[in-house]
Amino acid sequence: LGIPLLGEAKAAQPPRIPQIMRYGFPSNTNIKERGNYVLSYDRRNRNPNWVFEHLTKDIVAKTEDSADRTNINFIEDQTIPKIFRSTNRDYLNSGYDRGHMAAAANHRADQYWMEETFLLSNISPQHPHFNRNAWNNLERYVRSLAFHYENVYVCTGPLYLPMRMPDGKSYVTYEVLEPNHVAVPTHFFKVVLLETGGDFALRSYVMPNREVDPSTPLREFEQPIEAIEKSAGLLFLSGLPSAQQRNIVQNQSRRLRAF
Amino acid sequence: LGIPLLGEAKAAQPPRIPQIMRYGFPSNTNIKERGNYVLSYDRRNRNPNWVFEHLTKDIVAKTEDSADRTNINFIEDQTIPKIFRSTNRDYLNSGYDRGHMAAAANHRADQYWMEETFLLSNISPQHPHFNRNAWNNLERYVRSLAFHYENVYVCTGPLYLPMRMPDGKSYVTYEVLEPNHVAVPTHFFKVVLLETGGDFALRSYVMPNREVDPSTPLREFEQPIEAIEKSAGLLFLSGLPSAQQRNIVQNQSRRLRAF
Ligand SMILES: [Mg+2]
Ligand SMILES: [Mg+2]
Repeated sequence: LGIPLLGEAKAAQPPRIPQIMRYGFPSNTNIKERGNYVLSYDRRNRNPNWVFEHLTKDIVAKTEDSADRTNINFIEDQTIPKIFRSTNRDYLNSGYDRGHMAAAANHRADQYWMEETFLLSNISPQHPHFNRNAWNNLERYVRSLAFHYENVYVCTGPLYLPMRMPDGKSYVTYEVLEPNHVAVPTHFFKVVLLETGGDFALRSYVMPNREVDPSTPLREFEQPIEAIEKSAGLLFLSGLPSAQQRNIVQNQSRRLRAF
Repeated sequence: LGIPLLGEAKAAQPPRIPQIMRYGFPSNTNIKERGNYVLSYDRRNRNPNWVFEHLTKDIVAKTEDSADRTNINFIEDQTIPKIFRSTNRDYLNSGYDRGHMAAAANHRADQYWMEETFLLSNISPQHPHFNRNAWNNLERYVRSLAFHYENVYVCTGPLYLPMRMPDGKSYVTYEVLEPNHVAVPTHFFKVVLLETGGDFALRSYVMPNREVDPSTPLREFEQPIEAIEKSAGLLFLSGLPSAQQRNIVQNQSRRLRAF
């Protein structure tokens, strides 16, 4: 146990967990607290269940001192029992990218923070084009919101959505990468809570894990938070006072497409 | 919250949780403590992750006072948020039985205990022939062991195993029952720890969720506990002292077939 070896860098900031998790844990399964994000690990699928981040403009702004990702390697998470770990070997020649759930660039304020995003427990298999285009654009957009709101809370994770098949029944199907059976999610979600001066807004998105035309308007991927909760088996923002929950401005409701 | 309405019967016995869980929790996700069994609930798949029972001959022996299952109905588990619950409607016309994970007959010593096994959180979709034949035979066999050993600890649950497909890749595929997306497991496991006077033995089984010839010898379904742990994302018997773990007699090792 203990902190995995991540080079010489040390966390320079005070613990940020209470701030990151201010509005509640989506679940209590295998929680990992990092310097600048919190994660729940899925031992069966060798993926995160969810990761939670808190962004501000001070944290995400690019400066001369911003962390450098060029020499960071993806490494196994030693805090996870070996039989439940994903490894670099699972991704090698798999055709999938090692996709960050907590995005590396969200943690550029500290080298150690960024290194922690390269732990394989924070990684899900993503279609390369998707990781580098549509999903990356969503990550950039969320980061940009930190310049328009005081506080941005982001919860990100994989989905395994059922599809209706010609026999009229619904099935969940996903690939698993050998040798450790790392699940390839069918979709990914992002739930974004925006706050300025006690006023809240909510955006929530679901994107399929395949090549997505990067010019598709983001609102095409908006989904009601309740549909994400039901599919993921998670409850979001339980720590938000109910008066604020009622007043929240959410993107227009629509059912999850894959249902 | 609180205890769901299960009729007039009341638990007559002292709390049994410490005895049932004596050798450790397989995981800590959404734990439900019942009068005579303990369960972990999978909110994404609307199935148990695992159920744990402790059997003795006094508990499983048939007597004049044994509980009567004829008038017990399957009911929703009110302690689970509605969006994560399975319901009788999901099973209706699904082609699947409501299969007990903690077997009803293991709890016949007390009417309330038995009623709690009919909570739908303790139920997984099982192929009808399988539920009523091969799986039922395994349940009877495990119960019979309580007459040969002082203590029988049983952990039971669903598996979602990958299959190698013609494209050379491995996929997990399972049906989900509408409207609440109740997953139909591909397999089920049973891990059985037997103890008499401080000597331990271990049996572990995996059976496919389909029609299985009931005359197949049980040892055809034996699997090493490590293979079940890896597939299920669970760690068994962490509370067993390591000296005892080394001396345990386990069924012959073999890899999980579906791998
Ligand atoms: Mg990425
Ligand atoms: Mg049964």
